[in-house]
Amino acid sequence: MAGNPKTPGLWRDVVLFDGHDTRAEPMAVVVEDDHISRVMPMTELDRDVAAGCREMGRGGVMTPGLVDCHTHLVFGGSRADEFEQRLEGVSYEEIARRGGGILSTVRATRAASEDELFTQARPRLQALMAEGVTSVEIKSGYGLTVADELKMLRVARRLGESLPVRVVTTLLGAHALPPEYRDDSDAYIELVCREMIPAAAEQGLADAVDVFCEKIAFSVAQCERVFEAAEAHGLPVKAHAEQLSNLGGSTMAARHGALSADHIEYLDEAGVAALREAGSVAVLLPGAFHTLRETRLPPIEALREASVPMAIATDANPGSSPLFHPTLMLNFACTLFRLTPREALAGMTAHGARALGLHGQGLGRIEAGAPADLCWWDAESPAALAYAVQPGRLRQRIFNGEVTHDSAHA
Amino acid sequence: MAGNPKTPGLWRDVVLFDGHDTRAEPMAVVVEDDHISRVMPMTELDRDVAAGCREMGRGGVMTPGLVDCHTHLVFGGSRADEFEQRLEGVSYEEIARRGGGILSTVRATRAASEDELFTQARPRLQALMAEGVTSVEIKSGYGLTVADELKMLRVARRLGESLPVRVVTTLLGAHALPPEYRDDSDAYIELVCREMIPAAAEQGLADAVDVFCEKIAFSVAQCERVFEAAEAHGLPVKAHAEQLSNLGGSTMAARHGALSADHIEYLDEAGVAALREAGSVAVLLPGAFHTLRETRLPPIEALREASVPMAIATDANPGSSPLFHPTLMLNFACTLFRLTPREALAGMTAHGARALGLHGQGLGRIEAGAPADLCWWDAESPAALAYAVQPGRLRQRIFNGEVTHDSAHA
Ligand SMILES: [Zn+2]
Ligand SMILES: [Zn+2]
Repeated sequence: MAGNPKTPGLWRDVVLFDGHDTRAEPMAVVVEDDHISRVMPMTELDRDVAAGCREMGRGGVMTPGLVDCHTHLVFGGSRADEFEQRLEGVSYEEIARRGGGILSTVRATRAASEDELFTQARPRLQALMAEGVTSVEIKSGYGLTVADELKMLRVARRLGESLPVRVVTTLLGAHALPPEYRDDSDAYIELVCREMIPAAAEQGLADAVDVFCEKIAFSVAQCERVFEAAEAHGLPVKAHAEQLSNLGGSTMAARHGALSADHIEYLDEAGVAALREAGSVAVLLPGAFHTLRETRLPPIEALREASVPMAIATDANPGSSPLFHPTLMLNFACTLFRLTPREALAGMTAHGARALGLHGQGLGRIEAGAPADLCWWDAESPAALAYAVQPGRLRQRIFNGEVTHDSAHA
Repeated sequence: MAGNPKTPGLWRDVVLFDGHDTRAEPMAVVVEDDHISRVMPMTELDRDVAAGCREMGRGGVMTPGLVDCHTHLVFGGSRADEFEQRLEGVSYEEIARRGGGILSTVRATRAASEDELFTQARPRLQALMAEGVTSVEIKSGYGLTVADELKMLRVARRLGESLPVRVVTTLLGAHALPPEYRDDSDAYIELVCREMIPAAAEQGLADAVDVFCEKIAFSVAQCERVFEAAEAHGLPVKAHAEQLSNLGGSTMAARHGALSADHIEYLDEAGVAALREAGSVAVLLPGAFHTLRETRLPPIEALREASVPMAIATDANPGSSPLFHPTLMLNFACTLFRLTPREALAGMTAHGARALGLHGQGLGRIEAGAPADLCWWDAESPAALAYAVQPGRLRQRIFNGEVTHDSAHA
């Protein structure tokens, strides 16, 4: 479908969102092999250049391929029953007594083979890809043993090898306290630092290390120990922080040069300043906000004023965000968090790529020299992608210069 | 794909949601020509019956085809710009001054040809179909002249003729006051009653008549005149009512035996009793609730106690619900309105069909004799369809006995 890779592909007369903003005039984009070779206003597209290209598309909207920088796509089991029970009136206590909650996912993930986890995660990842994702982060965090965390990371790697999508893996051993360590969370943190991180690093399975810094999870001090272990193995860090209370996890993470602080509904001014100082990305997760029916908004205005880059991600997971739908998050970011469509789109392109440390390669942007990860949409404007939730608007998804989805020429 | 229509099709070992509830044991469903001929537990599927069928599917979840009983799918223009402007900080007053709001849709709809409206509405309808819709209501209401309202209804009819989906049309002339009648809403109601309704009825373009009963639209007395004109032409009625205040529109509608009262966030106990008495359906529209960031919930518990059937619909429209996604509404119904997954599914199947007056034919249910409108899903349970928002789970969509979408055998 992508034609002879030696012939450059041309998309013309597109409304272009370049990763940061919408270009004022109709644009032309040329892709050569695996990268974007030229981006120019239509008025500058000369006949010779056009004649040397294969025309791939005309009109519509073009954005960078979407970047979903925070997901928990690999897990065993389902929490649909628990969702139903809660709505049928079963109490949280009773659900916990029946073994529900995150530990039910841990049990099912431990019990599942690598192949089973792969088979179950694949359609979830394909759902994200069908709505434009070309780069995705996948965390471990439901294994909570060395073997099961590594198993999850291997599944994430296999997903990236078997599908046309960039997968970035994150070790989230410090996600929840496993039942075996119920009375000794420090001992579990020791396991994460002394065994999990070294093993994941040695086997090249983790691109970063994450923690859940919260009263119901791990303390700031414990998370800092995890970060020190990560640094000792050359792995960048990030944190789930300030989701339910303001413990100062984001500030500590910023001190360690974290790629991002994620959730951050309770982030205060000092935390915002710390993120700005460190160049960390604020990752906003409106899917969990929706599912948990939260009312406390992240400090959007303060982040905006401080020019902290805001990314948007699905947080796709079986408990607090079973929402495998990236463009829905663009709508949620606008409707629930009052981001502008431009901010929401930058949040799933340029800023999402920054949160994964991929921005140096030009990922998340449409500019000459960047990898050719692109989405070509049937939409009246880039803003319309956040405005309307409408399956089927992705005409083409281009990954590394190859058209991997083409409803325009189906 | 549906095979020889003379050979019955068999889906076996499915988890069946029959329109009201989930069957406790694995089921078999046999489709003959355009209707469901047998529905039975797998234990009762004898070898001879199975041998006489073509096996179409095994496992997964089967539901009735989804019924979206309240949409405004046909319209001209886009309100994406307005959505963006509001989020960029432009005031409502300024947007109104620039000609935004519903009247911008009216202008664009009037300016569009029938072909243009058809071409623009088609992908929206296909988006609904891609997530399982087999029956859909489409309202007029952005023309607000006799010619333009009839034009919208013709487009709706053409959509039903050109795509494998049941389209039910509704004349909503009394949707908003057109600028030409700014100082005389009674004169506009006269136009609706004396010209629009008779013309739509005579040309067979409307299956029902709807009104918007609200302070910002039309009074209860005006809506009642519209209903009387509808009745004089043998057309059933329904109302947008009690969305922003409690005017008593639902009670008046119930007195006229309305098919449904829709929105009803402000419905009171007397209104609930009136709907129960009349056998009217309460149509809940969580997409508008989300988009408008409403906080007042419809009286779910009172409706439940009174056994008023609750339908769920997208309210797909360019202003308050640009959400062309039926299964997202299942999630919203549960998460925002606290319906159970069973109630949400019944709301888009059996009760949605009742809101359109189609239940007599068995539509919205899986039972012997009903039209074979079915969805076969890749999901762990019917509840999972409301729990997770995940594109691509629809394996097959069966319309009138024909498989019109088949990702399982793609
Ligand atoms: Zn997370
Ligand atoms: Zn409506």
